[in-house]
Amino acid sequence: MRFVVFGTGAIGGAVAAALHLAQKDVIAISRGAQLDAIRSSGLRLRTPLMDEVVKLHAVGAADDIEFGPDDMILLAMKGQDTGEALEDLRAAGVTDQPIFCLQNGVANESKALRLFPNVHGVTVMMPALFTVPGEVVVQSAPKTGLFYIGRYPGGMDDADRNLCAALTDAGIAAFPKDNVMATKYGKLLMNLSNIVGAALGHGAPAPGLRETMRAEAEAVLAAAGIDWEDVGMDHPDRKAHMSFTKVPGVENAGTSTTQSFLRKTKRVETDWLNGEIVWLGRMHGVPVPVNAALTRIAARMARDGVAPGSVTMDEIEAEIRTS
Amino acid sequence: MRFVVFGTGAIGGAVAAALHLAQKDVIAISRGAQLDAIRSSGLRLRTPLMDEVVKLHAVGAADDIEFGPDDMILLAMKGQDTGEALEDLRAAGVTDQPIFCLQNGVANESKALRLFPNVHGVTVMMPALFTVPGEVVVQSAPKTGLFYIGRYPGGMDDADRNLCAALTDAGIAAFPKDNVMATKYGKLLMNLSNIVGAALGHGAPAPGLRETMRAEAEAVLAAAGIDWEDVGMDHPDRKAHMSFTKVPGVENAGTSTTQSFLRKTKRVETDWLNGEIVWLGRMHGVPVPVNAALTRIAARMARDGVAPGSVTMDEIEAEIRTS
Repeated sequence: MRFVVFGTGAIGGAVAAALHLAQKDVIAISRGAQLDAIRSSGLRLRTPLMDEVVKLHAVGAADDIEFGPDDMILLAMKGQDTGEALEDLRAAGVTDQPIFCLQNGVANESKALRLFPNVHGVTVMMPALFTVPGEVVVQSAPKTGLFYIGRYPGGMDDADRNLCAALTDAGIAAFPKDNVMATKYGKLLMNLSNIVGAALGHGAPAPGLRETMRAEAEAVLAAAGIDWEDVGMDHPDRKAHMSFTKVPGVENAGTSTTQSFLRKTKRVETDWLNGEIVWLGRMHGVPVPVNAALTRIAARMARDGVAPGSVTMDEIEAEIRTS
Repeated sequence: MRFVVFGTGAIGGAVAAALHLAQKDVIAISRGAQLDAIRSSGLRLRTPLMDEVVKLHAVGAADDIEFGPDDMILLAMKGQDTGEALEDLRAAGVTDQPIFCLQNGVANESKALRLFPNVHGVTVMMPALFTVPGEVVVQSAPKTGLFYIGRYPGGMDDADRNLCAALTDAGIAAFPKDNVMATKYGKLLMNLSNIVGAALGHGAPAPGLRETMRAEAEAVLAAAGIDWEDVGMDHPDRKAHMSFTKVPGVENAGTSTTQSFLRKTKRVETDWLNGEIVWLGRMHGVPVPVNAALTRIAARMARDGVAPGSVTMDEIEAEIRTS
């Protein structure tokens, strides 16, 4: 069994490094400065309990890998890059190997199922940071993360159990789930706030904004008949396995959305977080003006290369009025 | 009212030229050799009833257009290019103008609705050819085509009626439909055969293949609870408005899929035709081995730049056995 980790940002990097440290066979698909750093110096993984440099085997493209029947493929790129990654995997010869979506949002599994028959969802709770090439940080203990894993669109199988076992060996709490998408929708509800901190700045006051977006989302999920499971801070699995624990000397760079703006990426994951709620609202005739406004703001921030924290509450309120 | 036609292949080119000839305000977004040809010599539209060179106003990117509230946007690129086109439109300032999907398949409307609130489906029946830059041919008379147009996910509004009126002026039979997606699913069932001619060659025998793919598809649509309306050759609207009529001197280049392989495009629409059935089959647990095999063959043909007609029935049967 070999783990092919596609994407080595915060989550992919931390998972690949942790599996490697647990003596698993891992190969990563990386790019740009991160690939250069991994190749020249390895990947440094910092958690409250360890600080290790991992000699991770990394390649620049799916095509550089000879895929075999025992490969497990872990997708860890952002949602906006999934389509291209899937086409690359198919062109590289992947057929019915299990493909796990470790990504935020709920649309990746469906995209993967169009091209591949054996698709799995993974709900990832892991406060991970990737701001410096060659280094990922996870601020969680005693476990480095909490994952739920199951077959898409439903059920679970040996591939789910095998990945859970490997991750458990690697210090990540991982449990197979029969209805993993319910936990991914629960995670989506939490991720709706990512853009708030990214737009206004980490910790800036945003009176009522998060609450209104969440209320819109809960109304949409109810209208669409979509089950969701609360995976927030009060969930017993969280309490048992992980709590936010600072790694000394590491500044909190904010959510994955904030980190994307810091890296000046041209496309932003908000279309697959708040945008999922907007899409469901339009499909089911439920008004979602606040999620729609924040999705538009995120798109403009990405287009114009705006720094996180440079949007004001007045601008957000004006945008909501145009919804 | 201005019509922005995004994509100037067979369908987009013919629609843009026909609207222009009917004195409508049209601007086209084109690329590559087609853009060069349109700019230097205009776009030649040949039908059984006319042969005209149209001085079409064409630009190379959405960003080159100053969008206004009276624009109607017609998407006519292939399904694999829709995502990028939508992002370009948003970055260029499009907000709530009506967006019409004139494309085959049933996934474009949903993608558009994620980014834009005002989305419409168009079922396009138009035997059009685009094999030479600067020229499109439609082999249909007395009307150049038959279109159904409606709001997505359902209903109809003034935008639908306005586009129908303009197309009718341009010699295309066009009718508003309350449930336009049912006709798009009906068209999808017909398009499942595109890959058969593209793989085996136009007119090559394919015993049972088309029938089996269609039976798989009908079973999937039934399992998914999706309505579809037969828009095949026996439909009364077809009999009233269009019949296949050869344009002298024009060789039939086959379906849009065959034309794509002739142009050596790297990605192929089969993922959004047979691939839609495969995806629905996987979502609903209905076996779709033949559509899955042909989708894989199409992907390999595109990847390897294989000429249309170079696949054998034996190879297809072998591929089906691996499904």
